[in-house]
Amino acid sequence: MSQKPCIGVNVPRVDAWDKATGTAQYTDDLSLPGMLHGALKRSPLPHARIRAIDTSRARALPGVKAVITSADLPRVRYGNWRFSPNTQDEYALAVDKVRFVGDPVAAVAAVDRDTAIEALDLIQVDFEELPGLFDLDAAMAEGAPRIHEETAGNVSVTREIDYGDLAAGFARADYVRDDVYLMPPVSHAYLEPCSSLAQADSLGRITLWTSTQTPYIVQCLLASVLGLRENEVRVIKPYVGGGFGGKMELRSWDVCAAFLARLLGKPVKFTQTRDEEICAGRRRHPMRLRSRVGFTKDGLLLAKELIVHLDGGAYNSMGPTATFLVGNLGAMLYRYPAYRYRGFHVYTNNPPAGAMRGFGAPQAFFVAEGQMNEASADLGIDPIDIRLKNAMHPGDKIRGFATIGSCAFTECLERVAEMSEWRRQRREMRPGRGIGVGCYSFVTGGNFNWFDTKYPFSAAEVRAYADGAVHLLTMAADIGQGSDTVLQQILAEDLGLRLADVTLYAADTSLSPKGDLGTWASRVTFMVGNAILDATRQIKEELFKVVALKFDTNVVHSFECKDGMVRVKGRPEKAVPFGEAVAMVQSLRRGEPLIARGSYTPRDMGLVAPTYSFGAQVAEVEVDRDTGRVRVTRIHTAHDCGRPLNPQAVEGQVEGCVQMGLGYALTEELVMRQGRTLNASFLDYKIPGALDMPGIDSVCVGGPEPKGPFGAKESGEGPVSPTAPAIAEAVWHATGYRARRLPITAEQVLRHLETNPTANDDRRVKP
Amino acid sequence: MSQKPCIGVNVPRVDAWDKATGTAQYTDDLSLPGMLHGALKRSPLPHARIRAIDTSRARALPGVKAVITSADLPRVRYGNWRFSPNTQDEYALAVDKVRFVGDPVAAVAAVDRDTAIEALDLIQVDFEELPGLFDLDAAMAEGAPRIHEETAGNVSVTREIDYGDLAAGFARADYVRDDVYLMPPVSHAYLEPCSSLAQADSLGRITLWTSTQTPYIVQCLLASVLGLRENEVRVIKPYVGGGFGGKMELRSWDVCAAFLARLLGKPVKFTQTRDEEICAGRRRHPMRLRSRVGFTKDGLLLAKELIVHLDGGAYNSMGPTATFLVGNLGAMLYRYPAYRYRGFHVYTNNPPAGAMRGFGAPQAFFVAEGQMNEASADLGIDPIDIRLKNAMHPGDKIRGFATIGSCAFTECLERVAEMSEWRRQRREMRPGRGIGVGCYSFVTGGNFNWFDTKYPFSAAEVRAYADGAVHLLTMAADIGQGSDTVLQQILAEDLGLRLADVTLYAADTSLSPKGDLGTWASRVTFMVGNAILDATRQIKEELFKVVALKFDTNVVHSFECKDGMVRVKGRPEKAVPFGEAVAMVQSLRRGEPLIARGSYTPRDMGLVAPTYSFGAQVAEVEVDRDTGRVRVTRIHTAHDCGRPLNPQAVEGQVEGCVQMGLGYALTEELVMRQGRTLNASFLDYKIPGALDMPGIDSVCVGGPEPKGPFGAKESGEGPVSPTAPAIAEAVWHATGYRARRLPITAEQVLRHLETNPTANDDRRVKP
Repeated sequence: MSQKPCIGVNVPRVDAWDKATGTAQYTDDLSLPGMLHGALKRSPLPHARIRAIDTSRARALPGVKAVITSADLPRVRYGNWRFSPNTQDEYALAVDKVRFVGDPVAAVAAVDRDTAIEALDLIQVDFEELPGLFDLDAAMAEGAPRIHEETAGNVSVTREIDYGDLAAGFARADYVRDDVYLMPPVSHAYLEPCSSLAQADSLGRITLWTSTQTPYIVQCLLASVLGLRENEVRVIKPYVGGGFGGKMELRSWDVCAAFLARLLGKPVKFTQTRDEEICAGRRRHPMRLRSRVGFTKDGLLLAKELIVHLDGGAYNSMGPTATFLVGNLGAMLYRYPAYRYRGFHVYTNNPPAGAMRGFGAPQAFFVAEGQMNEASADLGIDPIDIRLKNAMHPGDKIRGFATIGSCAFTECLERVAEMSEWRRQRREMRPGRGIGVGCYSFVTGGNFNWFDTKYPFSAAEVRAYADGAVHLLTMAADIGQGSDTVLQQILAEDLGLRLADVTLYAADTSLSPKGDLGTWASRVTFMVGNAILDATRQIKEELFKVVALKFDTNVVHSFECKDGMVRVKGRPEKAVPFGEAVAMVQSLRRGEPLIARGSYTPRDMGLVAPTYSFGAQVAEVEVDRDTGRVRVTRIHTAHDCGRPLNPQAVEGQVEGCVQMGLGYALTEELVMRQGRTLNASFLDYKIPGALDMPGIDSVCVGGPEPKGPFGAKESGEGPVSPTAPAIAEAVWHATGYRARRLPITAEQVLRHLETNPTANDDRRVKP
Repeated sequence: MSQKPCIGVNVPRVDAWDKATGTAQYTDDLSLPGMLHGALKRSPLPHARIRAIDTSRARALPGVKAVITSADLPRVRYGNWRFSPNTQDEYALAVDKVRFVGDPVAAVAAVDRDTAIEALDLIQVDFEELPGLFDLDAAMAEGAPRIHEETAGNVSVTREIDYGDLAAGFARADYVRDDVYLMPPVSHAYLEPCSSLAQADSLGRITLWTSTQTPYIVQCLLASVLGLRENEVRVIKPYVGGGFGGKMELRSWDVCAAFLARLLGKPVKFTQTRDEEICAGRRRHPMRLRSRVGFTKDGLLLAKELIVHLDGGAYNSMGPTATFLVGNLGAMLYRYPAYRYRGFHVYTNNPPAGAMRGFGAPQAFFVAEGQMNEASADLGIDPIDIRLKNAMHPGDKIRGFATIGSCAFTECLERVAEMSEWRRQRREMRPGRGIGVGCYSFVTGGNFNWFDTKYPFSAAEVRAYADGAVHLLTMAADIGQGSDTVLQQILAEDLGLRLADVTLYAADTSLSPKGDLGTWASRVTFMVGNAILDATRQIKEELFKVVALKFDTNVVHSFECKDGMVRVKGRPEKAVPFGEAVAMVQSLRRGEPLIARGSYTPRDMGLVAPTYSFGAQVAEVEVDRDTGRVRVTRIHTAHDCGRPLNPQAVEGQVEGCVQMGLGYALTEELVMRQGRTLNASFLDYKIPGALDMPGIDSVCVGGPEPKGPFGAKESGEGPVSPTAPAIAEAVWHATGYRARRLPITAEQVLRHLETNPTANDDRRVKP
């Protein structure tokens, strides 16, 4: 009797029940005997020298157990780019000066949260305010004050990419665009605010439960800050309510919780407020991008020059990666014969930016797609046609960086055109309505080792039991994206089992197999999936041996795990139930259980990623000419994620991306005034809700990626990029308004409409 | 710089800080969101048919979420002797009839504990009372009702041991004793009552936190009862507050917690009351032992016949083992040229007895030592001298059962004689005071596989890290005896590290290496210690390779891990710090971590145990002639535990044994009336407290056991046996009263003194 496959079919999320019933425990749900509650005193000033901190009144408050400042902590700087120690520029609590509004200055531990918060006001910090630098030009200006003493000019990181003959390319161009785009800071807006709970044992070793995407990174960096050995710190990831890149670093509260737990001999928990999350959490990099691009009159790309200044805020965080990725992604998706990139990561006194879903891509593609759309209009070539002319294809190479594996970009474009009835709608839409297209590509996993790990990039341990159950151990961190489900699917499928045969134990740095770099760069399905297959290969080898022995098979035969059996291929009668075969292996080994560790580290796959996703999206909008308000009425999206292992989960990821892209396009922006975030709540910071969502037609396009587990590539990040440029183009189509900054507010559209009330109305009948 | 050794020195317990500060979480300390509280409805009758159970009123009580009876549960019987399924005679909730006062009949889950308890009274059970069988003879009488339908005569297990020519032995004997001893039921009196917390996932798989000595046994049996696969049940042992053999089985509340958690989709916790523990927890087997023993007139043993009837109570529990062990131990300690043993495990309507510290030995040795003391008096040979004549020596064999390895029994006797100034005191003690000796031997680990495991008996996983830390994973269950400490000592010592370099993760059936049979038969230090050494051997092999490579050593050299270094033996300058050597191995393996799994299963070591402890103890008493009250004034004890790995911990174990032996001798007895336990609280059931304890001189004697890890044997169980016979002999020495039953109550002594006021006073000047 053949089993339902576990791969390529819709499988309910394994965490659904726990989350729906409230059984799921997030970090803030945890409690330990004698637990204390922590809170952070944060800087009210964007840039200031700390003359003195008086904690005596706070310490005197009944219920307060300790108040610490940087004077108490080991003076160790940290940052994710461990490979380049000079980029590690952050302390858990500010040393000598504060650099942004929200910079942590002191931490309190008290018997309850209210007392801890009350104590914050009693901490008196004597600040000497320093001039603040809030925009790129001010920060880079000659003679500007240094935000970090060791960084003259406030440019902490630069990146360059050069290939092809740029000058020749532009010289040959019939049409050159040179535009400046401004991209806003936006918030991850994950639903679970960060939380950490630390417990110290009698030797001062730490167990930290924390809301993180990267247990291993937190483990290593926390150890270095506390002067512990890495393996004296255990990090456990409970359920995590979203991360989107904002939870992949060691953070102040992790350090303070652990330090205070050691100091006081009691567990200490810190949980951030939404206000803290929005004002002082990481954010998507605001950027200024100048892009010069040259085409032939037929719309063929010849050269591109991209100069990007990232407002990194007060610390580097993941900025070094952002500075590279935006440039790298600027060269993706289309064939650019010549490319020049210059990226500058600039310190300002704004809150630090970090990694965020699609890292670098939403900015890079808003520019690339915006210019493609503008060129299409100017050259009189349909936006989809001009893309098809320039689209990347399988086997394309970006010298020194990447070789494109599977790539169904062309099919994605053709598919969204068909789904949206593009050609008809583009021509016939009535005034006030518009349709536009945006495209993207994204990395599937990262080949870079900025964390300087000495372990495999990902690992999986598979334990097969005589009862037919298998256990999967991995450090992979499901933060809501569904990787726990898909990893179990991969394991079950490869061993010919059902999903219910698999139990997963994940994301505990002491018990999970080492290593795993965490959840970012859309790496989990691909990399941990491959590690699982490395383990199952070993498991199957052992199982096949005993089956060969049992049936004394002719040596030409091969074997398979299928339908719960281990069997001789093509000889269905020569089969042993999976558990029975495991028992035979165990017997052969005098009781030793059948366990295999697999790992995966990408090698010889270029600088960036083993493979890439591609996709195209069409947005339809309706613009209210009286108010300028843009309403997105429909999204058509085609995504090449290789083989979708769990189509429903892929669809969920794509829809989540559209939601985030929609906010980026129309409503989200952290409004800054002199380093202060003005809209620090979900009332004022508008993420699209369920009622704001358009209908979405979503399809997966393309075939399996040969390097991917069962053919999979990524689906969680790529589709976040096309929505904004597609909407921008649709708005232009509807109104003639060209957005070169985000979000596209009603005010901007209205201002345009006031002077150009019928712009583009005449385009309707033309091609 | 050479490090302090980790072995053979006093090392503070690794759990001391957690326990002293209240950080330690026992099962009942745990809480989960939405957790419900369970309680058991227990039979008020010793033997009755269940006509009907009406749970409607209980179910109607607000706050009650479910009430279950055996009708709800799968009808699966369980018991530890999985190897002999016919011995598995227990259901989680009584089916059709109850067999003892306390037999669980129904279980309630409610929103809080008070409600659950209130609901118990609302459950109406319609019982048809059956005749109860409360003593051995009644139970075995012709025509007695059957307690279990399938067991005619109520004898559920018999055991026989025969060797040597018994008839010839007795024929040659100059002196034959034939005595009947009666041993009482006593309680483990562990401080932590049993508690279980179960959580089910959406597929019905169970995680059970439970107060257990045997996570693996609970896992397997619970799975079988619930119809799950073993590896769909995860058992985690939190801190456990004592077990002493009473927590080594699957129990009703484990099953009910898990079943209700599955049924209700919420976590459910059951915690026993002290009353339940005393009345319906396991207990030490009450036994009737008839022992016939023959000596030459010089005091040389010639033959022994032992017939033991165990009152097993209503179920087998660990009775099959008890029935064997008491007979096996009856042949230990001395050289019996001929031996005949017949053991009968009898069902009665008393509460079931189970395993308890020293399992079978306190009874066997109270008889053997009592008879030895009586023979000594009758034959006019000093009690120590008569023992020396008959003592076992290294290399002695009990045909078919055991070969004695290391054995310092003679030295123990000599040492306690010296410590107690035996010869002088025995002669000169003033009337009303007495001195007596008792001895023992005990198993170190068990070779038997009554649980029918397919895994190694014990396992250890060692993970060595580049930071010089090592992690130890094991399923071994520290229940308060200190094994977590000693296992870390073994690991640190063998890798040349400090104790602080080791972190232990233990006793989680899903994450610990499989397998481990649990904490019983004094097996943990010996068996898991050997498994650790199997793992470290593999670790060292890898480390030595890279050091050989680094120094390109002459092939004749060997290597060692010492003082935190991996080095060439005899070439201190050719050394690499441990962590650095690990990093080299990891580099050699392209990042794969250095991990080894070790295991240990005793093979070719006889039927019973790989090796045995031995010891001798002298008690000094003072008897109040007006009240008959016995006060123990001093205990001298010499113990052969091989090499004591942590002398302070051994001393603690020996003193704990003395405390338990003291209670067995003088104050402890579960007073039974028609199957009811009358003294169900620590007010009425008297365990000796700190103020009741005599001064104890405790020494370890003997050399390392070659098979033991660093030479260790057992220390946690053996010394529980000699205290009672030593005290009994001292009481006889003081008063002439011969106790052939326990406890030795003031009433008994007083009754004796009333008729023999000066008995034995005249013995003072004689030898």
